[in-house]
Amino acid sequence: MKLHEAATAPNCRRVRIFLAEKGIEVPVVPVDLGSAENRQDAFRQKNPMGRVPVLELDDGTFIAESVAICRYFEQLQPEPALMGGDDPAEAARIEMWQRRMELEVALPIMQVFRNTHPYFADRIQQYADYGESQRSHATKRLAWLDRELADREFVAGDEYSIADITAQIGIDFGRVTKFRVTEETPNLLRWHQAVSARPSAKA
Amino acid sequence: MKLHEAATAPNCRRVRIFLAEKGIEVPVVPVDLGSAENRQDAFRQKNPMGRVPVLELDDGTFIAESVAICRYFEQLQPEPALMGGDDPAEAARIEMWQRRMELEVALPIMQVFRNTHPYFADRIQQYADYGESQRSHATKRLAWLDRELADREFVAGDEYSIADITAQIGIDFGRVTKFRVTEETPNLLRWHQAVSARPSAKA
Repeated sequence: MKLHEAATAPNCRRVRIFLAEKGIEVPVVPVDLGSAENRQDAFRQKNPMGRVPVLELDDGTFIAESVAICRYFEQLQPEPALMGGDDPAEAARIEMWQRRMELEVALPIMQVFRNTHPYFADRIQQYADYGESQRSHATKRLAWLDRELADREFVAGDEYSIADITAQIGIDFGRVTKFRVTEETPNLLRWHQAVSARPSAKA
Repeated sequence: MKLHEAATAPNCRRVRIFLAEKGIEVPVVPVDLGSAENRQDAFRQKNPMGRVPVLELDDGTFIAESVAICRYFEQLQPEPALMGGDDPAEAARIEMWQRRMELEVALPIMQVFRNTHPYFADRIQQYADYGESQRSHATKRLAWLDRELADREFVAGDEYSIADITAQIGIDFGRVTKFRVTEETPNLLRWHQAVSARPSAKA
């Protein structure tokens, strides 16, 4: 088994944190995003979308999409459960929060990056006004998440889950476009300090 | 158990098709999106995001996010398996395709609607140039999906899955912004005719 990934990509960090929480080690093959190795034919044979991470299984199967890779390891090694385990309502609740963190927090933060950051200026057509609208959207969602975290320890409840990982990688990636967690959102700050103090945060 | 939903919303249709494939019937409570019932306090107590569908369990738990609702029913009644079952690689492969259909097909098609359609003109700030860029993006992805479907029956492989449902609800919703599946993408057309002929398509 091999994990094709890039140190700087937030979706790769999502898988690394997930694996660290599970205590699973997988050999890593670095992919150089700077030279667009991920857009070359050799890489596109692994993932036609040209994106990292990609998990290569021993039988030659390639699994792309970071959440799908997490799902693979969750089923392979259910403990500690990060995606809800066997209880239907619990699994659904965690998936609900995972999707909210993905679509309402991480995705808009990444849209700010894609549409306003110089890194992408020569790579894609940027829409700066749309990008800034996503900054406003994400900021509102972080204020909402702060209120949600007033009465519970983690994003999906009292247990740490993949929803925390997705929020963490999204928010931390926001540093490059000036997102910061401050005293203005005290519950979010407390949560962010807690997840940042976990050994997995270094992954 | 009750399902709060709206007949016209594509994410509600995703759950209805999923339930129809499972042969599960759930009482429905209609939510009037036209009068913005979903933005009122009474509804926001069910889902603070103000969105449908929301599943209300008998113990008063609310589960939002259509894929999370599907996950709940998949665990409650595993057969027919629409999310991959117990095999880790199979579940991961279906989740990979589910996410690709969600993020690369359904989401850009819905972004076209949000950013260019008169329905949203008075409801949100629209970014028409961004919306049109998503039309181009989705069109390329549909051409890619056509090539992928050249050598297999369904989106994630030879078995029907939630990935087909997500592609179906996204593409069908695209009709309101002039997306059509034509002979130009013959494999996609064959697939679309097949999923449209299933009894669940009427859900």
